[in-house]
Amino acid sequence: MCVITLLTDFGTQDAFVGVMKGVIKSLAPHADVIDLTHHVPPQDIRAGAFVLQTACRYFPPGTVHLAVVDPGVGGARRPVAAHIGDFVYVCPDNGLLSHVLAQDTLTQAVTLDDRRYHLPQVSRTFHGRDIFAPIAAHLANGVSLETLGTPLSTLETFPLSQPLVSGKTITCHVLYADVFGNLFTDLTEDGARTELFPSAVIEVGHAVIHGLSDSYSQAPEGSPLALFGSSGHLEIAVRNGNAQQQLGIKVGDRVTVRT
Amino acid sequence: MCVITLLTDFGTQDAFVGVMKGVIKSLAPHADVIDLTHHVPPQDIRAGAFVLQTACRYFPPGTVHLAVVDPGVGGARRPVAAHIGDFVYVCPDNGLLSHVLAQDTLTQAVTLDDRRYHLPQVSRTFHGRDIFAPIAAHLANGVSLETLGTPLSTLETFPLSQPLVSGKTITCHVLYADVFGNLFTDLTEDGARTELFPSAVIEVGHAVIHGLSDSYSQAPEGSPLALFGSSGHLEIAVRNGNAQQQLGIKVGDRVTVRT
Amino acid sequence: MCVITLLTDFGTQDAFVGVMKGVIKSLAPHADVIDLTHHVPPQDIRAGAFVLQTACRYFPPGTVHLAVVDPGVGGARRPVAAHIGDFVYVCPDNGLLSHVLAQDTLTQAVTLDDRRYHLPQVSRTFHGRDIFAPIAAHLANGVSLETLGTPLSTLETFPLSQPLVSGKTITCHVLYADVFGNLFTDLTEDGARTELFPSAVIEVGHAVIHGLSDSYSQAPEGSPLALFGSSGHLEIAVRNGNAQQQLGIKVGDRVTVRT
Repeated sequence: MCVITLLTDFGTQDAFVGVMKGVIKSLAPHADVIDLTHHVPPQDIRAGAFVLQTACRYFPPGTVHLAVVDPGVGGARRPVAAHIGDFVYVCPDNGLLSHVLAQDTLTQAVTLDDRRYHLPQVSRTFHGRDIFAPIAAHLANGVSLETLGTPLSTLETFPLSQPLVSGKTITCHVLYADVFGNLFTDLTEDGARTELFPSAVIEVGHAVIHGLSDSYSQAPEGSPLALFGSSGHLEIAVRNGNAQQQLGIKVGDRVTVRT
Repeated sequence: MCVITLLTDFGTQDAFVGVMKGVIKSLAPHADVIDLTHHVPPQDIRAGAFVLQTACRYFPPGTVHLAVVDPGVGGARRPVAAHIGDFVYVCPDNGLLSHVLAQDTLTQAVTLDDRRYHLPQVSRTFHGRDIFAPIAAHLANGVSLETLGTPLSTLETFPLSQPLVSGKTITCHVLYADVFGNLFTDLTEDGARTELFPSAVIEVGHAVIHGLSDSYSQAPEGSPLALFGSSGHLEIAVRNGNAQQQLGIKVGDRVTVRT
Repeated sequence: MCVITLLTDFGTQDAFVGVMKGVIKSLAPHADVIDLTHHVPPQDIRAGAFVLQTACRYFPPGTVHLAVVDPGVGGARRPVAAHIGDFVYVCPDNGLLSHVLAQDTLTQAVTLDDRRYHLPQVSRTFHGRDIFAPIAAHLANGVSLETLGTPLSTLETFPLSQPLVSGKTITCHVLYADVFGNLFTDLTEDGARTELFPSAVIEVGHAVIHGLSDSYSQAPEGSPLALFGSSGHLEIAVRNGNAQQQLGIKVGDRVTVRT
């Protein structure tokens, strides 16, 4: 039994996601299909790429991760499948794998150009149904990656921001805001000398935060706090509040840590 | 293993849908339950009927499609099950199958009046749980349709609009607006002489569209476009915008195609 | 095959729920994971407790109900698992089981303090992923409750309101408002002398309702009505309207029934 996960920006108001599952079940009845989320902000490849990377590693090795955030559907971007780390990814080649590729090793990739593995009729507007879902089903059935198309040596990525260290100051950047308005930065616990952080001063927008918290409940109601959250990234949050709105911060903005 | 799909207007805020799945799993542990959508606009039978028809055919033959958009629950409308084309449908007899019946052939239908196949206690307000879910489970277990109630020869339908052709002008009608505001008309690619369309002029509200696009990305940002989308229906969309709002169009409004 | 249900306040915008399912599938590939809802109002333990109780009993005996509404995550509250009635519950010990415990008998409970059954790294902010999901998976695999931690004799509960009877007047209280604004009270059909109700006068806020309805469609459009709904609780609703908003009622407010 193989797990297939789905991450899209299709929402759940229409039956687009249900239809993709119907295509998968028609070809691979025993695949176990699990939703990561269908509420990636519309066409926001960067948000999708971040969520995909933080979620993918909690699944069994061999899981097929199908991701569709695809503003270029019907245009020149290639549909691809790739072995990266322990997983197989199926998606448009538009940067969606940028965070995954920064973390894990690409061992094999193909352009999905063998039409025998697509639906008989491929529309211009719904490759999730017509190309990506059947490919994921065939992979779950044990069809090998090289059968599905022409080998590729590289995949599209967008440049990832990196924390900058200068003396005792680390400048990091907001990668993602979750639905609660918690802000995730590009500084990870692995890469940070966290022993220096208890006395750190963290500046984000006009707010100044003193030291790290262990959990959301350590700050007073409505006050901003910083912690290394469950994703392993330095997070800025407001207890029972929305840090993104309260601090007026958007993706790409700087967070400065003075140790 | 049998697939059961669910389409409702129950939303996902409460556990109504989860409870229906619990009832199904109690009776048919091996059924594979898949959500089409639970966000049909409340009590909007016409929207539900359209979404059901566009989605149902992507599932394996024999799939049981359970649909509940049921403003008349507890009143006189009959609960029914029907073989139509390759599928079995379980729903209130209130028009929800209108689009499916226009597409595929009804071979058998019953009123669900044998209470042995319902939950022991049937409420007046939640037939999704008390009647439709157990019936779908019994069907997935191989119970035959005729066992479940009294045969019926016809099902309720609402009148479906049709495109009108007059000389070189086709007048079609908006059937459905999806969550992105894309407008789906009653003109389908099969029924249209699409070779005439490259030079067609399409009028929708105050907007005039010249020719058909192949994909959403062919129009300038914010401009309306027309295409035969993934559903096979003529669609009116606005690139990275909401056609329904921008053009002030609602379901039932006319779209005129001059070829 | 064991069913695991999930009830949380995580929403579906991010991949938190998907990640919990990944953890479960990694440990218990054959578990059948079903969503109750992920839209409990944030941190609203009382709403979660009510929804859990009304939904749990529709699942097969032996189902593992995993519930996470957890404002105290990372603090002093204990993670627990408990056999109550026919089911096993896995959740923070913060009152989430209050309604279930009022209904069914607690036979066994443990604090989840044996770290061998958690993920290797337990974060301070996401016990749903790091503790509750792996515990539910081990339970689905047949690991016995007593293996998972130290026995407990009692669980935290919040005081539940009760209907008060004084002569011919019953004073009951609003426990929950669903997404449609329907108000659920603590008066249940089992506990009420419903033969007296046809002529009852029901007061809720400034509204006066005469007698009980059998279904939502019995009242005029926009008028408030009272019925014993599918949950078995006395419900106040407005036909095609939102009783909570229209009547200005909130959880805890009184509903008076004069028989």
